Amino acid sequence: MLSEFSLIDRFFARRAAAQPSDAAADTLGIGDDCALLAPRAGEVLAISTDMLVEGRHFFPDIDPEALGHKALAVNLSDLAAMGAQPQAFTLAFSLPKADEAWLAAFSEGLFALAERHGCALIGGDTTGGPLNLCITVFGSVPPRMALRRDAARPGDDIWISGTLGDARAGLGVRRGEWSADADDAARFRHALERPEPRVALGLALRGIAHAALDLSDGLAGDLLHILERSNLRATVDADAVPRSAALRRLSLEVQRRCTLAGGDDYELCFTAPPAARASVETAGREAGVPVTRIGTISALQTAADRPAIDWRDAAGAPLTLTLQGFDHFHAD
Amino acid sequence: MLSEFSLIDRFFARRAAAQPSDAAADTLGIGDDCALLAPRAGEVLAISTDMLVEGRHFFPDIDPEALGHKALAVNLSDLAAMGAQPQAFTLAFSLPKADEAWLAAFSEGLFALAERHGCALIGGDTTGGPLNLCITVFGSVPPRMALRRDAARPGDDIWISGTLGDARAGLGVRRGEWSADADDAARFRHALERPEPRVALGLALRGIAHAALDLSDGLAGDLLHILERSNLRATVDADAVPRSAALRRLSLEVQRRCTLAGGDDYELCFTAPPAARASVETAGREAGVPVTRIGTISALQTAADRPAIDWRDAAGAPLTLTLQGFDHFHAD
Repeated sequence: MLSEFSLIDRFFARRAAAQPSDAAADTLGIGDDCALLAPRAGEVLAISTDMLVEGRHFFPDIDPEALGHKALAVNLSDLAAMGAQPQAFTLAFSLPKADEAWLAAFSEGLFALAERHGCALIGGDTTGGPLNLCITVFGSVPPRMALRRDAARPGDDIWISGTLGDARAGLGVRRGEWSADADDAARFRHALERPEPRVALGLALRGIAHAALDLSDGLAGDLLHILERSNLRATVDADAVPRSAALRRLSLEVQRRCTLAGGDDYELCFTAPPAARASVETAGREAGVPVTRIGTISALQTAADRPAIDWRDAAGAPLTLTLQGFDHFHAD
Repeated sequence: MLSEFSLIDRFFARRAAAQPSDAAADTLGIGDDCALLAPRAGEVLAISTDMLVEGRHFFPDIDPEALGHKALAVNLSDLAAMGAQPQAFTLAFSLPKADEAWLAAFSEGLFALAERHGCALIGGDTTGGPLNLCITVFGSVPPRMALRRDAARPGDDIWISGTLGDARAGLGVRRGEWSADADDAARFRHALERPEPRVALGLALRGIAHAALDLSDGLAGDLLHILERSNLRATVDADAVPRSAALRRLSLEVQRRCTLAGGDDYELCFTAPPAARASVETAGREAGVPVTRIGTISALQTAADRPAIDWRDAAGAPLTLTLQGFDHFHAD
């Protein structure tokens, strides 16, 4: 059993020191009471924190290398949704025991993703306890360019990056809710365990998109956050929501459930004016991720009107869906 | 049982919005993918993260109001040790169930301390799971004024704020390692559950102290961090380490164990040149906390010499102590 300090040193501090770091002389990484960090000149720091708990956000038998990836990916996804450039992160975690093989694999998954995004580990805390991972991530963004949830406008198109629902489909296969052949099951599991944060797309959408967020709790619940913050309604074509070929092999009911209320997608949902359609398509191409229009933002019609989503099917007929986003305090 | 969103809203988001916040227009608090935060003009952000786990950092029966206080206090203590002005924090926690009375008391303890320090809640995450609290705190400091661990110099005095050992004494009473009368036991318990971060002292020591850190794992282990980062030795008068009247009523052996290797003190240990003694005393008076000189920093004597502490008793005779700082992966 390693002591805390040698454990941190072996798997985290050394590699943190080797991280690409901000060139400014006034930064300070691991080893002091605090790290010191500044945003780029004229910019502000975008900050997000996420906690992952065993048995709730991941299965106990998850590959630790995939867990290291996912723990950082879900945080980078929040930076992407703000249009922020990743800069640094802190990692706090509790572990039942200091298992060297587990830590080696976990840190490998974590740093592989961190290095791809030039995101340096600048501080942390480790302790014994039930497995729990808390990452806080820092990005830099010009304040007026940040993609906020309250910035949607009537007439905006609603866009989705990538495809939705594969992660929820993987959870369903794991739980025995439905089945898939081995290839599709592997694809779903990959989506669940190795989400790819859309950092490049978020940066490319600066100055183009109005509002944005990342889909972590399911489209139905997450899009509502934009509508509530912007005080607007949306009409969405439920069957236009992009989905993988693998997901299309499951029933339409499962497809809708996974794409609209699935969760763990970590794709971007954003709004942009119709005049920006070509720019949005270009941003997607440059970022290497498809973007799909799924609906439209509209103003509230009366004083009693509330932010809400009007779901339509492919023929434009109203759909009544009783979908809820994933809520961590309810059984899913 | 509350759903996650209404729970956050009732106890945290509303109060977060009422927090004193940075006056800059480019800040953004709870409710988006990221918070936006900038340090004061010309300054950098000091960042620290701490995770508290039930059964390891606090007893399951702790008053939730005290826990709210302590969870933030241990983080503010890291800002104090850097000489940083508290600005904001994020809170991520997992809870076995959403108990309203517990959350009301916890948030009361948390925000009472936050408001005293003008420190705004800007983001968070809540989930189900074994009780775990992770706070990341942000302060602002001029980069050249930050009190770093690697800044001690030969000839510096070593100083301690307040008194050490009461928190460890309280843990010992609780564990039955020793006993104390009801008043002393209450004092010890208060020290354990309600540490007071030395924020005002940290700010007052800018430009006066060389190196500083906060004592969380015990003086013997923590002072060694300064020595290792600064590549120096120290001579410390073990019996000059300040302790409360209550602690003095326990045996000398227990006093030494609690003051030198106790942990959970959250007092500052700092070094300053002898010429600054009057300034240090003034800083302590202005911050309302006593400061005590306990030893001296010296250079390494030979190439084989290693950073270490030479302990002396009140008569100046060498003391052999086999003390270790608290290590979370060992049984304490």
